[in-house]
Amino acid sequence: MNDLFKKNLELTKKRLRESVKFDTLLVQAINNIDELNKATNLLAKRLREWFELYNPEFSKDVPDNEKFAELVTRKQDKKEKGSMGAELPENDLRQMRSLAAELNNLYKLKENETSYVEELMQKNCPNMEKVAGALIGAKLIEIAGSLERLAKMAASTVQMLGAEKALFRHIKTGAKAPKYGVIFAHPFISEAKIDRGKRARALADKISVAAKVDFFKGEFAADRLLLELKKKFGG
Amino acid sequence: MNDLFKKNLELTKKRLRESVKFDTLLVQAINNIDELNKATNLLAKRLREWFELYNPEFSKDVPDNEKFAELVTRKQDKKEKGSMGAELPENDLRQMRSLAAELNNLYKLKENETSYVEELMQKNCPNMEKVAGALIGAKLIEIAGSLERLAKMAASTVQMLGAEKALFRHIKTGAKAPKYGVIFAHPFISEAKIDRGKRARALADKISVAAKVDFFKGEFAADRLLLELKKKFGG
Repeated sequence: MNDLFKKNLELTKKRLRESVKFDTLLVQAINNIDELNKATNLLAKRLREWFELYNPEFSKDVPDNEKFAELVTRKQDKKEKGSMGAELPENDLRQMRSLAAELNNLYKLKENETSYVEELMQKNCPNMEKVAGALIGAKLIEIAGSLERLAKMAASTVQMLGAEKALFRHIKTGAKAPKYGVIFAHPFISEAKIDRGKRARALADKISVAAKVDFFKGEFAADRLLLELKKKFGG
Repeated sequence: MNDLFKKNLELTKKRLRESVKFDTLLVQAINNIDELNKATNLLAKRLREWFELYNPEFSKDVPDNEKFAELVTRKQDKKEKGSMGAELPENDLRQMRSLAAELNNLYKLKENETSYVEELMQKNCPNMEKVAGALIGAKLIEIAGSLERLAKMAASTVQMLGAEKALFRHIKTGAKAPKYGVIFAHPFISEAKIDRGKRARALADKISVAAKVDFFKGEFAADRLLLELKKKFGG
Protein backbone atom coordinates (compact mmCIF):
# COMPACT_ATOMS: atom_id res chain seq x y z
CA MET A 1 0.00 0.00 0.00
CA ASN A 2 1.36 3.40 -0.81
CA ASP A 3 1.23 6.22 1.67
CA LEU A 4 -1.54 8.21 0.04
CA PHE A 5 -3.84 5.22 -0.11
CA LYS A 6 -3.07 4.37 3.51
CA LYS A 7 -3.81 7.89 4.63
CA ASN A 8 -7.00 7.94 2.66
CA LEU A 9 -8.15 4.65 4.19
CA GLU A 10 -7.42 5.92 7.70
CA LEU A 11 -9.35 9.07 7.00
CA THR A 12 -12.34 7.14 5.71
CA LYS A 13 -12.30 4.87 8.75
CA LYS A 14 -12.10 7.90 11.01
CA ARG A 15 -15.05 9.51 9.30
CA LEU A 16 -17.06 6.30 9.59
CA ARG A 17 -16.22 6.08 13.27
CA GLU A 18 -17.32 9.62 13.86
CA SER A 19 -20.54 9.19 11.94
CA VAL A 20 -21.95 7.28 14.91
CA LYS A 21 -23.76 10.03 16.75
CA PHE A 22 -26.17 9.87 19.60
CA ASP A 23 -29.14 9.61 17.27
CA THR A 24 -27.70 6.47 15.68
CA LEU A 25 -27.64 4.86 19.11
CA LEU A 26 -31.07 6.23 19.85
CA VAL A 27 -32.53 4.69 16.72
CA GLN A 28 -30.98 1.34 17.66
CA ALA A 29 -32.45 1.52 21.14
CA ILE A 30 -35.91 2.43 19.85
CA ASN A 31 -35.80 -0.45 17.39
CA ASN A 32 -34.76 -2.76 20.21
CA ILE A 33 -37.71 -1.71 22.31
CA ASP A 34 -40.00 -2.41 19.36
CA GLU A 35 -38.53 -5.89 18.88
CA LEU A 36 -38.67 -6.60 22.60
CA ASN A 37 -42.32 -5.67 22.48
CA LYS A 38 -42.90 -8.15 19.69
CA ALA A 39 -40.91 -10.89 21.44
CA THR A 40 -42.66 -10.43 24.79
CA ASN A 41 -46.07 -10.43 23.12
CA LEU A 42 -45.31 -13.66 21.29
CA LEU A 43 -44.01 -15.41 24.38
CA ALA A 44 -46.70 -14.07 26.71
CA LYS A 45 -49.33 -15.50 24.40
CA ARG A 46 -47.52 -18.85 24.47
CA LEU A 47 -47.24 -18.81 28.23
CA ARG A 48 -50.94 -18.14 28.64
CA GLU A 49 -52.02 -20.87 26.26
CA TRP A 50 -49.73 -23.31 28.01
CA PHE A 51 -50.57 -22.35 31.57
CA GLU A 52 -54.29 -22.45 30.82
CA LEU A 53 -54.08 -26.22 30.48
CA TYR A 54 -53.20 -26.21 34.14
CA ASN A 55 -55.09 -23.27 35.56
CA PRO A 56 -57.39 -21.50 33.09
CA GLU A 57 -59.18 -19.45 35.77
CA PHE A 58 -55.99 -17.79 36.93
CA SER A 59 -55.07 -16.66 33.43
CA LYS A 60 -58.47 -14.99 33.06
CA ASP A 61 -58.08 -13.25 36.42
CA VAL A 62 -54.82 -11.53 35.44
CA PRO A 63 -55.22 -9.79 32.09
CA ASP A 64 -51.90 -7.92 32.27
CA ASN A 65 -49.15 -9.97 30.63
CA GLU A 66 -46.27 -8.66 32.72
CA LYS A 67 -48.12 -9.22 35.96
CA PHE A 68 -49.19 -12.65 34.76
CA ALA A 69 -45.62 -13.76 33.99
CA GLU A 70 -44.44 -12.52 37.35
CA LEU A 71 -47.17 -14.34 39.25
CA VAL A 72 -46.60 -17.60 37.37
CA THR A 73 -42.95 -17.60 38.41
CA ARG A 74 -43.89 -17.10 42.02
CA LYS A 75 -46.98 -19.27 42.07
CA GLN A 76 -46.25 -22.63 43.64
CA ASP A 77 -48.78 -25.23 42.68
CA LYS A 78 -51.66 -23.54 44.47
CA LYS A 79 -54.67 -24.03 42.33
CA GLU A 80 -58.24 -23.05 43.08
CA LYS A 81 -60.29 -26.04 44.16
CA GLY A 82 -62.62 -27.12 41.40
CA SER A 83 -60.43 -25.63 38.66
CA MET A 84 -61.07 -26.93 35.19
CA GLY A 85 -57.32 -27.27 34.61
CA ALA A 86 -55.50 -30.58 34.55
CA GLU A 87 -53.23 -31.87 37.29
CA LEU A 88 -49.74 -31.79 35.82
CA PRO A 89 -46.48 -33.32 37.02
CA GLU A 90 -43.97 -30.97 38.58
CA ASN A 91 -41.64 -31.35 35.62
CA ASP A 92 -44.21 -29.83 33.25
CA LEU A 93 -44.94 -26.98 35.62
CA ARG A 94 -41.25 -26.26 35.93
CA GLN A 95 -41.08 -25.78 32.16
CA MET A 96 -43.84 -23.21 32.32
CA ARG A 97 -42.13 -21.38 35.14
CA SER A 98 -38.88 -21.22 33.16
CA LEU A 99 -40.68 -19.55 30.29
CA ALA A 100 -42.36 -17.14 32.70
CA ALA A 101 -39.01 -16.29 34.33
CA GLU A 102 -37.47 -15.61 30.95
CA LEU A 103 -40.39 -13.40 30.04
CA ASN A 104 -39.82 -11.41 33.22
CA ASN A 105 -36.23 -10.89 32.21
CA LEU A 106 -37.32 -9.60 28.84
CA TYR A 107 -39.70 -7.13 30.47
CA LYS A 108 -36.88 -5.98 32.71
CA LEU A 109 -34.59 -5.56 29.73
CA LYS A 110 -37.26 -3.46 28.04
CA GLU A 111 -37.50 -1.20 31.09
CA ASN A 112 -33.76 -0.94 31.08
CA GLU A 113 -33.68 0.08 27.42
CA THR A 114 -36.41 2.60 28.07
CA SER A 115 -34.32 4.25 30.80
CA TYR A 116 -31.40 4.28 28.42
CA VAL A 117 -33.49 6.11 25.82
CA GLU A 118 -34.57 8.57 28.50
CA GLU A 119 -30.97 9.23 29.44
CA LEU A 120 -29.93 9.72 25.83
CA MET A 121 -32.77 12.13 25.27
CA GLN A 122 -32.19 14.07 28.48
CA LYS A 123 -28.55 14.52 27.62
CA ASN A 124 -28.86 15.29 23.92
CA CYS A 125 -32.36 16.65 23.40
CA PRO A 126 -33.46 18.22 26.68
CA ASN A 127 -36.09 20.35 24.95
CA MET A 128 -37.66 17.52 22.99
CA GLU A 129 -37.49 15.32 26.07
CA LYS A 130 -39.51 17.83 28.06
CA VAL A 131 -42.01 18.86 25.39
CA ALA A 132 -42.64 15.56 23.59
CA GLY A 133 -41.53 13.11 26.25
CA ALA A 134 -38.51 10.83 25.84
CA LEU A 135 -40.14 7.95 23.97
CA ILE A 136 -42.26 10.02 21.61
CA GLY A 137 -39.29 12.29 20.92
CA ALA A 138 -37.05 9.32 20.23
CA LYS A 139 -39.65 7.73 17.99
CA LEU A 140 -39.92 10.97 15.99
CA ILE A 141 -36.15 11.05 15.52
CA GLU A 142 -36.23 7.41 14.48
CA ILE A 143 -38.88 7.99 11.82
CA ALA A 144 -37.24 11.20 10.59
CA GLY A 145 -33.90 9.37 10.42
CA SER A 146 -31.89 11.78 12.55
CA LEU A 147 -32.28 14.80 14.81
CA GLU A 148 -30.99 16.97 11.99
CA ARG A 149 -33.69 15.85 9.60
CA LEU A 150 -36.37 16.24 12.24
CA ALA A 151 -35.15 19.75 13.06
CA LYS A 152 -35.45 20.74 9.41
CA MET A 153 -38.95 19.39 8.91
CA ALA A 154 -42.08 21.53 8.81
CA ALA A 155 -44.26 21.29 11.92
CA SER A 156 -47.09 19.88 9.81
CA THR A 157 -44.84 17.01 8.76
CA VAL A 158 -43.83 16.34 12.36
CA GLN A 159 -47.52 16.19 13.22
CA MET A 160 -48.04 13.33 10.75
CA LEU A 161 -44.87 11.29 11.37
CA GLY A 162 -45.89 7.72 11.98
CA ALA A 163 -49.23 8.14 10.20
CA GLU A 164 -47.80 7.54 6.74
CA LYS A 165 -50.04 4.58 6.00
CA ALA A 166 -53.23 6.42 6.89
CA LEU A 167 -52.02 9.43 4.95
CA PHE A 168 -51.47 7.42 1.77
CA ARG A 169 -54.82 5.71 2.25
CA HIS A 170 -56.35 9.17 2.46
CA ILE A 171 -54.66 10.28 -0.75
CA LYS A 172 -55.42 7.13 -2.69
CA THR A 173 -58.90 6.22 -1.51
CA GLY A 174 -60.23 9.46 -0.10
CA ALA A 175 -60.53 7.91 3.36
CA LYS A 176 -60.54 10.31 6.29
CA ALA A 177 -57.28 12.23 6.66
CA PRO A 178 -55.30 11.38 9.80
CA LYS A 179 -54.80 14.18 12.29
CA TYR A 180 -51.68 12.91 14.01
CA GLY A 181 -49.00 10.26 13.96
CA VAL A 182 -46.97 9.07 16.93
CA ILE A 183 -47.56 12.31 18.85
CA PHE A 184 -51.05 10.99 19.52
CA ALA A 185 -49.57 8.97 22.40
CA HIS A 186 -48.85 12.26 24.20
CA PRO A 187 -51.34 12.77 27.07
CA PHE A 188 -51.89 16.34 25.85
CA ILE A 189 -53.76 14.76 22.92
CA SER A 190 -54.77 11.28 24.01
CA GLU A 191 -56.30 12.49 27.26
CA ALA A 192 -58.18 15.37 25.67
CA LYS A 193 -61.86 14.89 24.98
CA ILE A 194 -62.18 17.58 22.32
CA ASP A 195 -60.04 19.59 19.92
CA ARG A 196 -57.61 16.74 19.33
CA GLY A 197 -56.79 17.95 15.84
CA LYS A 198 -56.10 21.50 17.03
CA ARG A 199 -54.07 20.21 19.96
CA ALA A 200 -52.04 18.00 17.63
CA ARG A 201 -51.17 20.96 15.44
CA ALA A 202 -50.18 23.11 18.41
CA LEU A 203 -48.12 20.34 20.01
CA ALA A 204 -46.37 19.55 16.74
CA ASP A 205 -45.49 23.25 16.45
CA LYS A 206 -43.84 23.23 19.86
CA ILE A 207 -42.06 19.92 19.30
CA SER A 208 -40.76 21.26 16.03
CA VAL A 209 -39.32 24.31 17.79
CA ALA A 210 -37.86 22.08 20.51
CA ALA A 211 -36.13 19.90 17.90
CA LYS A 212 -34.59 22.99 16.30
CA VAL A 213 -33.35 24.30 19.65
CA ASP A 214 -31.86 20.89 20.47
CA PHE A 215 -30.18 20.50 17.12
CA PHE A 216 -28.72 24.01 16.96
CA LYS A 217 -27.83 23.89 20.68
CA GLY A 218 -29.93 26.93 21.51
CA GLU A 219 -30.92 28.02 24.98
CA PHE A 220 -33.32 25.79 26.93
CA ALA A 221 -36.83 26.76 25.84
CA ALA A 222 -39.01 23.82 26.82
CA ASP A 223 -40.62 25.45 29.85
CA ARG A 224 -41.69 28.45 27.82
CA LEU A 225 -43.05 26.21 25.05
CA LEU A 226 -45.10 24.18 27.49
CA LEU A 227 -46.40 27.33 29.13
CA GLU A 228 -47.59 28.66 25.79
CA LEU A 229 -49.45 25.41 25.14
CA LYS A 230 -51.04 25.59 28.55
CA LYS A 231 -52.13 29.18 28.04
CA LYS A 232 -53.75 28.38 24.74
CA PHE A 233 -55.66 25.29 25.83
CA GLY A 234 -55.88 25.74 29.60
CA GLY A 235 -55.39 22.89 32.05
CA MET B 1 -77.86 -25.05 41.86
CA ASN B 2 -79.69 -28.31 41.98
CA ASP B 3 -77.85 -31.57 42.51
CA LEU B 4 -78.09 -32.85 38.96
CA PHE B 5 -76.64 -29.67 37.54
CA LYS B 6 -73.86 -29.70 40.10
CA LYS B 7 -72.95 -33.29 39.31
CA ASN B 8 -73.01 -32.55 35.62
CA LEU B 9 -70.71 -29.57 36.06
CA GLU B 10 -68.28 -31.62 38.11
CA LEU B 11 -68.28 -34.33 35.46
CA THR B 12 -67.61 -31.82 32.69
CA LYS B 13 -64.74 -30.30 34.64
CA LYS B 14 -63.32 -33.76 35.28
CA ARG B 15 -63.49 -34.60 31.59
CA LEU B 16 -61.81 -31.33 30.68
CA ARG B 17 -59.05 -32.01 33.22
CA GLU B 18 -58.48 -35.45 31.80
CA SER B 19 -58.44 -34.24 28.22
CA VAL B 20 -54.94 -32.85 28.79
CA LYS B 21 -52.82 -35.73 27.56
CA PHE B 22 -49.15 -35.87 26.85
CA ASP B 23 -49.67 -34.78 23.25
CA THR B 24 -51.36 -31.57 24.39
CA LEU B 25 -48.24 -30.72 26.37
CA LEU B 26 -46.08 -31.79 23.47
CA VAL B 27 -47.89 -29.48 21.07
CA GLN B 28 -47.43 -26.61 23.52
CA ALA B 29 -43.73 -27.30 23.83
CA ILE B 30 -43.24 -27.52 20.08
CA ASN B 31 -45.08 -24.24 19.60
CA ASN B 32 -42.89 -22.69 22.27
CA ILE B 33 -39.75 -23.80 20.49
CA ASP B 34 -41.08 -22.24 17.28
CA GLU B 35 -41.80 -18.94 19.03
CA LEU B 36 -38.44 -18.97 20.78
CA ASN B 37 -36.85 -19.43 17.38
CA LYS B 38 -38.68 -16.37 16.09
CA ALA B 39 -37.82 -14.31 19.17
CA THR B 40 -34.13 -15.23 19.12
CA ASN B 41 -33.89 -14.49 15.40
CA LEU B 42 -35.47 -11.05 15.87
CA LEU B 43 -33.23 -10.14 18.77
CA ALA B 44 -30.06 -11.57 17.27
CA LYS B 45 -30.58 -9.41 14.20
CA ARG B 46 -31.03 -6.40 16.47
CA LEU B 47 -27.91 -7.21 18.47
CA ARG B 48 -25.83 -7.51 15.31
CA GLU B 49 -27.03 -4.25 13.83
CA TRP B 50 -26.35 -2.50 17.11
CA PHE B 51 -23.00 -4.04 17.84
CA GLU B 52 -21.81 -3.37 14.30
CA LEU B 53 -21.73 0.36 15.09
CA TYR B 54 -19.01 -0.49 17.55
CA ASN B 55 -17.22 -3.42 15.97
CA PRO B 56 -18.41 -4.35 12.48
CA GLU B 57 -15.46 -6.68 11.78
CA PHE B 58 -16.24 -8.91 14.75
CA SER B 59 -19.84 -9.41 13.68
CA LYS B 60 -18.68 -10.56 10.25
CA ASP B 61 -16.18 -12.97 11.80
CA VAL B 62 -18.82 -14.83 13.81
CA PRO B 63 -21.72 -15.80 11.55
CA ASP B 64 -23.42 -18.06 14.11
CA ASN B 65 -25.95 -16.06 16.15
CA GLU B 66 -25.73 -18.09 19.32
CA LYS B 67 -21.95 -17.98 19.35
CA PHE B 68 -22.06 -14.28 18.57
CA ALA B 69 -24.34 -13.47 21.50
CA GLU B 70 -22.18 -15.48 23.84
CA LEU B 71 -18.98 -13.77 22.73
CA VAL B 72 -20.50 -10.29 23.00
CA THR B 73 -21.39 -10.93 26.63
CA ARG B 74 -17.87 -12.02 27.41
CA LYS B 75 -16.05 -9.53 25.20
CA GLN B 76 -14.67 -6.69 27.24
CA ASP B 77 -13.93 -3.67 25.14
CA LYS B 78 -11.16 -5.32 23.17
CA LYS B 79 -11.48 -4.07 19.66
CA GLU B 80 -9.19 -4.76 16.73
CA LYS B 81 -6.89 -1.83 16.05
CA GLY B 82 -8.00 0.06 12.98
CA SER B 83 -11.60 -1.08 13.30
CA MET B 84 -14.14 0.96 11.39
CA GLY B 85 -16.44 0.95 14.40
CA ALA B 86 -16.99 3.97 16.61
CA GLU B 87 -15.62 4.39 20.11
CA LEU B 88 -18.59 4.19 22.43
CA PRO B 89 -18.99 5.05 26.10
CA GLU B 90 -19.15 2.13 28.52
CA ASN B 91 -22.83 2.83 29.23
CA ASP B 92 -23.76 2.14 25.61
CA LEU B 93 -21.72 -1.04 25.51
CA ARG B 94 -23.34 -2.23 28.69
CA GLN B 95 -26.73 -1.96 27.00
CA MET B 96 -25.55 -4.16 24.17
CA ARG B 97 -24.17 -6.71 26.58
CA SER B 98 -27.51 -6.85 28.44
CA LEU B 99 -29.28 -7.67 25.22
CA ALA B 100 -26.67 -10.32 24.41
CA ALA B 101 -27.00 -11.86 27.88
CA GLU B 102 -30.77 -12.02 27.49
CA LEU B 103 -30.37 -13.65 24.11
CA ASN B 104 -28.13 -16.29 25.68
CA ASN B 105 -30.84 -17.02 28.21
CA LEU B 106 -33.37 -17.47 25.44
CA TYR B 107 -31.08 -19.92 23.65
CA LYS B 108 -30.69 -21.84 26.89
CA LEU B 109 -34.43 -21.90 27.39
CA LYS B 110 -34.82 -23.28 23.88
CA GLU B 111 -32.34 -26.07 24.63
CA ASN B 112 -34.22 -26.76 27.81
CA GLU B 113 -37.52 -27.04 25.97
CA THR B 114 -35.94 -29.31 23.41
CA SER B 115 -34.80 -31.70 26.15
CA TYR B 116 -38.31 -31.59 27.57
CA VAL B 117 -39.74 -32.59 24.18
CA GLU B 118 -37.20 -35.41 23.99
CA GLU B 119 -38.24 -36.67 27.41
CA LEU B 120 -41.93 -36.53 26.55
CA MET B 121 -41.30 -38.43 23.33
CA GLN B 122 -39.07 -41.05 24.93
CA LYS B 123 -41.64 -41.73 27.58
CA ASN B 124 -44.78 -41.68 25.45
CA CYS B 125 -43.67 -42.48 21.90
CA PRO B 126 -40.51 -44.56 22.18
CA ASN B 127 -40.95 -45.97 18.67
CA MET B 128 -41.52 -42.62 16.97
CA GLU B 129 -38.70 -41.15 19.00
CA LYS B 130 -36.29 -43.74 17.68
CA VAL B 131 -37.47 -43.92 14.07
CA ALA B 132 -38.31 -40.27 13.34
CA GLY B 133 -36.27 -38.56 16.04
CA ALA B 134 -37.83 -36.63 18.92
CA LEU B 135 -38.28 -33.26 17.23
CA ILE B 136 -39.53 -34.54 13.87
CA GLY B 137 -41.86 -36.95 15.66
CA ALA B 138 -43.20 -34.18 17.89
CA LYS B 139 -43.67 -31.87 14.92
CA LEU B 140 -45.66 -34.58 13.09
CA ILE B 141 -47.91 -35.01 16.12
CA GLU B 142 -48.34 -31.24 16.30
CA ILE B 143 -49.39 -30.96 12.65
CA ALA B 144 -51.66 -34.00 12.85
CA GLY B 145 -53.21 -32.57 16.03
CA SER B 146 -52.66 -35.59 18.26
CA LEU B 147 -50.89 -38.95 18.37
CA GLU B 148 -54.22 -40.64 17.74
CA ARG B 149 -54.83 -38.74 14.53
CA LEU B 150 -51.29 -39.33 13.36
CA ALA B 151 -51.58 -43.06 14.10
CA LYS B 152 -54.71 -43.24 11.95
CA MET B 153 -53.25 -41.42 8.96
CA ALA B 154 -52.07 -43.11 5.77
CA ALA B 155 -48.29 -43.26 5.39
CA SER B 156 -48.52 -41.13 2.24
CA THR B 157 -50.19 -38.38 4.29
CA VAL B 158 -47.51 -38.59 6.96
CA GLN B 159 -44.91 -38.18 4.21
CA MET B 160 -46.45 -34.83 3.20
CA LEU B 161 -47.24 -33.36 6.63
CA GLY B 162 -45.75 -29.89 6.74
CA ALA B 163 -45.71 -29.54 2.95
CA GLU B 164 -49.33 -28.44 2.70
CA LYS B 165 -48.49 -25.14 1.02
CA ALA B 166 -46.37 -26.75 -1.69
CA LEU B 167 -49.03 -29.41 -2.16
CA PHE B 168 -51.77 -26.85 -2.73
CA ARG B 169 -49.53 -24.91 -5.06
CA HIS B 170 -49.01 -28.14 -6.99
CA ILE B 171 -52.74 -28.77 -7.23
CA LYS B 172 -53.66 -25.20 -8.14
CA THR B 173 -50.83 -24.16 -10.44
CA GLY B 174 -49.33 -27.44 -11.57
CA ALA B 175 -46.00 -26.60 -9.91
CA LYS B 176 -43.77 -29.55 -9.08
CA ALA B 177 -45.30 -31.86 -6.47
CA PRO B 178 -43.47 -31.91 -3.12
CA LYS B 179 -41.90 -35.22 -2.11
CA TYR B 180 -41.82 -34.69 1.64
CA GLY B 181 -42.83 -32.41 4.47
CA VAL B 182 -41.13 -32.10 7.83
CA ILE B 183 -39.58 -35.57 7.55
CA PHE B 184 -37.12 -34.01 5.13
CA ALA B 185 -35.13 -32.82 8.15
CA HIS B 186 -34.33 -36.46 8.94
CA PRO B 187 -30.70 -37.24 8.02
CA PHE B 188 -31.90 -40.40 6.25
CA ILE B 189 -33.32 -38.06 3.59
CA SER B 190 -31.46 -34.78 3.94
CA GLU B 191 -28.05 -36.44 3.87
CA ALA B 192 -28.84 -38.70 0.93
CA LYS B 193 -27.57 -37.66 -2.48
CA ILE B 194 -30.05 -39.70 -4.53
CA ASP B 195 -33.43 -41.39 -4.17
CA ARG B 196 -34.77 -38.80 -1.78
CA GLY B 197 -38.33 -39.37 -2.94
CA LYS B 198 -38.08 -43.14 -2.49
CA ARG B 199 -36.40 -42.72 0.86
CA ALA B 200 -39.11 -40.32 1.99
CA ARG B 201 -41.80 -42.87 1.12
CA ALA B 202 -39.99 -45.66 2.93
CA LEU B 203 -39.28 -43.54 6.02
CA ALA B 204 -42.87 -42.31 6.17
CA ASP B 205 -44.00 -45.94 6.04
CA LYS B 206 -41.88 -46.82 9.03
CA ILE B 207 -42.83 -43.69 10.99
CA SER B 208 -46.45 -44.48 10.32
CA VAL B 209 -46.02 -47.97 11.76
CA ALA B 210 -44.12 -46.54 14.73
CA ALA B 211 -46.95 -44.09 15.45
CA LYS B 212 -49.47 -46.93 15.43
CA VAL B 213 -47.35 -49.05 17.78
CA ASP B 214 -46.97 -46.07 20.13
CA PHE B 215 -50.63 -45.20 20.10
CA PHE B 216 -51.90 -48.75 20.58
CA LYS B 217 -49.13 -49.51 23.10
CA GLY B 218 -47.75 -52.40 21.06
CA GLU B 219 -44.39 -54.05 21.60
CA PHE B 220 -41.27 -51.97 20.88
CA ALA B 221 -40.60 -52.29 17.15
CA ALA B 222 -38.31 -49.38 16.31
CA ASP B 223 -35.11 -51.39 16.00
CA ARG B 224 -36.70 -53.78 13.54
CA LEU B 225 -38.15 -50.87 11.52
CA LEU B 226 -34.80 -49.14 11.29
CA LEU B 227 -33.12 -52.41 10.30
CA GLU B 228 -35.58 -52.86 7.45
CA LEU B 229 -34.83 -49.36 6.20
CA LYS B 230 -31.13 -50.04 6.37
CA LYS B 231 -31.46 -53.29 4.47
CA LYS B 232 -33.44 -51.65 1.69
CA PHE B 233 -31.17 -48.67 1.17
CA GLY B 234 -27.86 -49.84 2.61
CA GLY B 235 -25.61 -47.63 4.69
